[in-house]
Amino acid sequence: MNERKKDLKGIPILDLIHEELERVERKMREVSRIEYEQLRATLDYLLGGGGKRLRPALVLLSSKFYPADAEKITSMAAAVETLHTATLIHDDLIDNAFLRRGNPTLNALWNSAATVLTGDYLFARAAAFAAETESVRVVSIFARTLMTICSGELNQIFGGDRGQPTATAREYYYQRIYSKTASLFAASTEAGAVLGEAPPTEAQALRDYGYNLGMAFQIVDDILDFAGNEGELGKPIGSDLRQGIITLPTICFLEAHPEDKTVSRVLSGQGKGDDEIRAAVEAIKESGAIESSTAEARGFAARSRDALSILPHNKYYQAMLDLADFVVERRK
Amino acid sequence: MNERKKDLKGIPILDLIHEELERVERKMREVSRIEYEQLRATLDYLLGGGGKRLRPALVLLSSKFYPADAEKITSMAAAVETLHTATLIHDDLIDNAFLRRGNPTLNALWNSAATVLTGDYLFARAAAFAAETESVRVVSIFARTLMTICSGELNQIFGGDRGQPTATAREYYYQRIYSKTASLFAASTEAGAVLGEAPPTEAQALRDYGYNLGMAFQIVDDILDFAGNEGELGKPIGSDLRQGIITLPTICFLEAHPEDKTVSRVLSGQGKGDDEIRAAVEAIKESGAIESSTAEARGFAARSRDALSILPHNKYYQAMLDLADFVVERRK
Repeated sequence: MNERKKDLKGIPILDLIHEELERVERKMREVSRIEYEQLRATLDYLLGGGGKRLRPALVLLSSKFYPADAEKITSMAAAVETLHTATLIHDDLIDNAFLRRGNPTLNALWNSAATVLTGDYLFARAAAFAAETESVRVVSIFARTLMTICSGELNQIFGGDRGQPTATAREYYYQRIYSKTASLFAASTEAGAVLGEAPPTEAQALRDYGYNLGMAFQIVDDILDFAGNEGELGKPIGSDLRQGIITLPTICFLEAHPEDKTVSRVLSGQGKGDDEIRAAVEAIKESGAIESSTAEARGFAARSRDALSILPHNKYYQAMLDLADFVVERRK
Repeated sequence: MNERKKDLKGIPILDLIHEELERVERKMREVSRIEYEQLRATLDYLLGGGGKRLRPALVLLSSKFYPADAEKITSMAAAVETLHTATLIHDDLIDNAFLRRGNPTLNALWNSAATVLTGDYLFARAAAFAAETESVRVVSIFARTLMTICSGELNQIFGGDRGQPTATAREYYYQRIYSKTASLFAASTEAGAVLGEAPPTEAQALRDYGYNLGMAFQIVDDILDFAGNEGELGKPIGSDLRQGIITLPTICFLEAHPEDKTVSRVLSGQGKGDDEIRAAVEAIKESGAIESSTAEARGFAARSRDALSILPHNKYYQAMLDLADFVVERRK
């Protein structure tokens, strides 16, 4: 809990839904069906990995505008965070990443068999939590979101960073971050609304908020990969570039500098040395690309706030506005 | 379809539910959300891999005792088979297997990233199909079954073949094949009954049928790994032994021959040569262990038939009895 408090410092959201988040935390950590001590301890480690718990907070906050069943809300909040954890575990395996949030990843500690299965197990737990809502519509939102996440990653592997022949790099990037991040943010806010039996226009407004917030969140994540502090982030700077992944700062840079060699060499895998990567990161940082990307993120955050305008302007509304600011202004 | 006809030759089940199975087949192959031709072709290959389609047949047959919504039944039948396919894809990766049903496995063709993600994508599709039933209870059965399958595999990795300190090898084996196979068979028959709004005792009877049929099916699978024909099975004989996996024939053998060295050397990984594995397989085949194991499988098949006794003795009932015979007598 201390970790989260620090992460969301200055955001009144925690005071408002502090107890609800604690219930979600306890629910996520009920690992009764697992018989082996080693595995129980590992799941505890994975589920307690210092994440911001933004997705469960979105389910909780969205439900607060309506009289909703607290247990079902807790289940769905646990479902989205468990699903998120499962995708991180498989992503780390796929990316061959060995650090996340400054801690060793599962596949750095274990073999890939255990990693695949632990991810699968958490997918199953997440689906079981979603089923506990007893809402067919929520389960359907959950399943479709998981499909969106997976097909986005598959498209990335099969299409490389070229995307559809007709899509520009920027369009392709937006499709990718929708699949990767905004789809689950949107599912979280929509599910909270649906469980509260929100009127359709309000459920759509909350979904739009989640979508735009998720887009802003991922753009900022991608900016921090260039402009963040390694110590605070718990991972090396420039890791996207190193893996040949083109994110918004790189797109802005390449649009302004089509003749560039430094960044292109790293992206193509020709420039692999730490010095070359550092030079490419510096070139992007000095080009104004970070500022342009931040402006894009602020645009999405503004649209997320606008989407909420039809909701009652109460303390939950205010918390959600603050959250949109936090997402853009955060440094880790 | 020809593949399946051949597999289930002599079982009247196909004539009874031929059209329904074709609908399931079409539903499974709708891969509209995938944008890349290469991936679409691969999914088509995976989903059409010549499986027996036993699990969808169980959903369909169980529903036939009741007036049930045909579309929802089709969705659930597609859900269980898609889930089954997803688990096979991850299993092959985990086992480093390179042949299944005589065809190259996905991970022999692709890298592990694509394999993990394709499995995940099919899990998501399966969950989405289950959600289409609009039955909270069915979705819950689906999610719990996926958890059982995953936690069984995790226990196997973490506990090795020792299992719980208090469990005998035989008890541990039965737990393992329940997780691996019988849980999804039981879920299939129970889901068919639940979608037909079967009375609770009949839903339980159908679940019991599925459970016992699944146990028999897996024991026979494990027998065929010793006593089958490589050409018909499409995989090498003795592959469980080679991987150090203890199945029922080996348990029967070791109970009768506690002083044996041949089999123990292979299981411990000391005896890795083809000659040593062949000798161990022969020792087990000549010991009467195959016959004892077959008797166990027949016991489960008999219990599956008994469970059905409270149902109307119609043509679907008869098909399910025949299926229990087929499962035990099959040669591949």
